[in-house]
Amino acid sequence: MEKVSLGPRPYMTPMPTVIVGATIGGKPNFMTVAWAGVACMNPPMVAIAINKMRYTEKGILENKSFSVNIPAAKNAVEVDYCGIVSGNKADKSKVFKTFYGKLKTAPLIDDFPVNIECEVRHTLDLGSHNLHVGEVIDVHVAKECMTGGVPDTKKIDPLVFSGSDYCHIGKVISKAFSVGKGFKK
Amino acid sequence: MEKVSLGPRPYMTPMPTVIVGATIGGKPNFMTVAWAGVACMNPPMVAIAINKMRYTEKGILENKSFSVNIPAAKNAVEVDYCGIVSGNKADKSKVFKTFYGKLKTAPLIDDFPVNIECEVRHTLDLGSHNLHVGEVIDVHVAKECMTGGVPDTKKIDPLVFSGSDYCHIGKVISKAFSVGKGFKK
Repeated sequence: MEKVSLGPRPYMTPMPTVIVGATIGGKPNFMTVAWAGVACMNPPMVAIAINKMRYTEKGILENKSFSVNIPAAKNAVEVDYCGIVSGNKADKSKVFKTFYGKLKTAPLIDDFPVNIECEVRHTLDLGSHNLHVGEVIDVHVAKECMTGGVPDTKKIDPLVFSGSDYCHIGKVISKAFSVGKGFKK
Repeated sequence: MEKVSLGPRPYMTPMPTVIVGATIGGKPNFMTVAWAGVACMNPPMVAIAINKMRYTEKGILENKSFSVNIPAAKNAVEVDYCGIVSGNKADKSKVFKTFYGKLKTAPLIDDFPVNIECEVRHTLDLGSHNLHVGEVIDVHVAKECMTGGVPDTKKIDPLVFSGSDYCHIGKVISKAFSVGKGFKK
């Protein structure tokens, strides 16, 4: 396959689109993040990469906690707003109806189908960004998005970030841990 | 919104599906990974979470390098195979036609639209998994997947992992860094 070399750059596709919540100066703040993923099974951990200049950084460093809130497609406007407008310039504490779980400094977005409470275990200073690794303390899922006791991705209808657009999850290609069973080389 | 608490568990949606390449005992090996994302802009870095029991771990720790290969939908069978079958039990060195870029211990999959070469900068022992943070040395993209000098996600047609299925990226909900501009609370 003919390839072109792009040189060193941060690249991944697809990416999630989540809103990270933190408490700064006693108020909740929210920022949109695509650089997020699971980091460990046991104990359960997630990692988020945050530009060190961002307002949210202060709260994560101060309280050693954050939330990861997974939006539905219908939340795309608020999600985009929280990515465009900085907490340095606007008070985003009232954009969402919030609630709290076990951590009193990790504000959770009521209207989003999934909320993950995290306690910071590691912060890696990588350069422009800090990579925060948080232990998951609890996961809250909308009752209407559960099927047979587990979160149902179809019902959650999360945002896939293509790099330029927010998209739905599309058609199924194949079942995981299944279609490869017959593969022979 | 009525929510149920699931307790501590690793959760994120959506996730990518990539194949991590490494060299073990002088041979390339490949494993499927969904816990991967960008970790830093400058210098460019990606992070991957690998179970410490996995065969691939040996190669990453030994050579301090790995590759992240982004498959197209048409590669789903091989992708699933590399997630089901361990390098401990099967020789996966011949599953793909491979090539090398700048790093001679990060095997790249010729038939996949995107290949990322990474040099390990940090390895965080988190418990069941090591989180490897790799600096991106180069990104190779299929010429046919470029539009106007940048990688075109539509042409790449990567796999979105829903938790149980590999899916296409679906319909566009809205343009990022745009639809939120008009938001007022």
